[in-house]
Amino acid sequence: MASLKVPANVPLPEEDAEQLHKAFKGWGTNEGMIISILAHRNATQRSFIRAVYAANYNKDLLNELDRELSGDFERAVMLWTFEPAERDAYLAKESTKMFTKNNWVLVEVACTRSALEFFSAKQAYQARYKTSLEEDVAYHTSGDIRKLLVPLVSTFRYDGDEVNMVLARSEAKILHQKIEEKAYVDDDLIRILTTRSKAQISATLNHYKNNFGTSMAKYLKEDSEYIQLLKAVIKCLTYPEKYFEKVLRQAINKLGTDEWGLTRVVTTRAEFDMERIKEEYLRRNSVPLDRAIAKDTHGDYEDILLALLGHDHA
Amino acid sequence: MASLKVPANVPLPEEDAEQLHKAFKGWGTNEGMIISILAHRNATQRSFIRAVYAANYNKDLLNELDRELSGDFERAVMLWTFEPAERDAYLAKESTKMFTKNNWVLVEVACTRSALEFFSAKQAYQARYKTSLEEDVAYHTSGDIRKLLVPLVSTFRYDGDEVNMVLARSEAKILHQKIEEKAYVDDDLIRILTTRSKAQISATLNHYKNNFGTSMAKYLKEDSEYIQLLKAVIKCLTYPEKYFEKVLRQAINKLGTDEWGLTRVVTTRAEFDMERIKEEYLRRNSVPLDRAIAKDTHGDYEDILLALLGHDHA
Repeated sequence: MASLKVPANVPLPEEDAEQLHKAFKGWGTNEGMIISILAHRNATQRSFIRAVYAANYNKDLLNELDRELSGDFERAVMLWTFEPAERDAYLAKESTKMFTKNNWVLVEVACTRSALEFFSAKQAYQARYKTSLEEDVAYHTSGDIRKLLVPLVSTFRYDGDEVNMVLARSEAKILHQKIEEKAYVDDDLIRILTTRSKAQISATLNHYKNNFGTSMAKYLKEDSEYIQLLKAVIKCLTYPEKYFEKVLRQAINKLGTDEWGLTRVVTTRAEFDMERIKEEYLRRNSVPLDRAIAKDTHGDYEDILLALLGHDHA
Repeated sequence: MASLKVPANVPLPEEDAEQLHKAFKGWGTNEGMIISILAHRNATQRSFIRAVYAANYNKDLLNELDRELSGDFERAVMLWTFEPAERDAYLAKESTKMFTKNNWVLVEVACTRSALEFFSAKQAYQARYKTSLEEDVAYHTSGDIRKLLVPLVSTFRYDGDEVNMVLARSEAKILHQKIEEKAYVDDDLIRILTTRSKAQISATLNHYKNNFGTSMAKYLKEDSEYIQLLKAVIKCLTYPEKYFEKVLRQAINKLGTDEWGLTRVVTTRAEFDMERIKEEYLRRNSVPLDRAIAKDTHGDYEDILLALLGHDHA
């Protein structure tokens, strides 16, 4: 369930665009106005506002935001204002660049979105960057990590619920054998995790647990980046709320707070499953997520995150 | 979220009572009619029907059901028709009797209900059986298990969200020390688990995980009934959906199906958190709960379980 709160009576996009235009004008920018509008509109409504803004003022709303805002607040507003596919493309691109390289984000985007959402992100990626995500990932990675990530971002997984139990049984056996041999970079192991549907992988890992006593992830004990990414793949595919809870926990508990992680999870999940993530967060940390965020952030940045968590009203 | 489906226009209790009265009459009982009414009314509506039935026909609806029905279907209809507190009292009483003794059910009722719900169950227990749950549990248990279960069913836990983090830290240390010493029946360990609020225990166990690397439950490896009950206490207090998923999984996977477990979970959770339990069930078994139940049961018994899972309409 989404945490985003949209008011019962949403103003026309023309009115919203006009208010935003006013917010940019004069001496200071009116950040409160920006939050009260954008943080309470869904993706469709935001894209209408952008279209109307471009038509009426002959300017790109995103450029205006970029010019007027700064720091963590800017990043949060920008990421949020994007359409979901555009935003995923942006995050993925960032993750393949030298200074903002982040293989975790690639796993996250490839594995927690639905097959169609991820496909749309890849289309948006091509439209914007004139290259494919696959080629950029392949170019910027190497070795074992390339072996895992390239198929991961390439496959258009089947997204249905049907599960082949015979296959689940036989592939659980394969996985168990590979794990026993510590063959973590094995072709079959990677093939199973990168090509099967989420429902099928879930069934296979359930068989694994039922037949071999412990979950496969428990056997992955090495501390290499490859093994950690493999565990993230499994978590993202089978228990995304818990994966996101962990990203938030680590971002908030880190000395100095990892604002990029925090902003990314809040802006990408507010319209999808943030309520479930909040539930997991409270369960695992005994502190409500909004309180933890309020303690670690301040000012406009705090305000937009809390608004996206469903805190205040438009 | 509840799985129970109540129609938009609920007939008057008088009409429902009359239809039920008709269903019992004549040659055969009309089981379909019983399901279509009772399995689509919430607790308040069912209790009105019982009151009107008693007033208009001078008979106790539960006695009528007992007389007309039999087997697993009867048990499901009876348990469901009870009010929640009455039902918990009934299940708890059963669990302290010689032939239906079941310490797991005592843990389940004591730990998955809210403090007030459990207190109501204890009041209903006294009203019906003229003894206290505490004395019956103390009388029918002994040794380590008594040491755990008596305080567990006695405490009226604080039910709020407030958490004392300093306390959580110090009690996590105590628990860790006891576990290291394998002092699983230690007074302090039992005191913490049986008297602290759910939120506080959750905080303590989270500290445990953060500071000592693994969850406390992971360290509890012995196979004794005591240790298994201790693990059930922890699961029920901190992750009830997963606890119920496991009870259902074991009930369904058992050779010959454990109808008592199945009926108990479906009838006690349909009005509370069954939707979340269904979600966990699908995730862990790769089969939707309703399909698994349909495969393992049949006839009227199957029909009422599926109706309570939200399957068909009134």
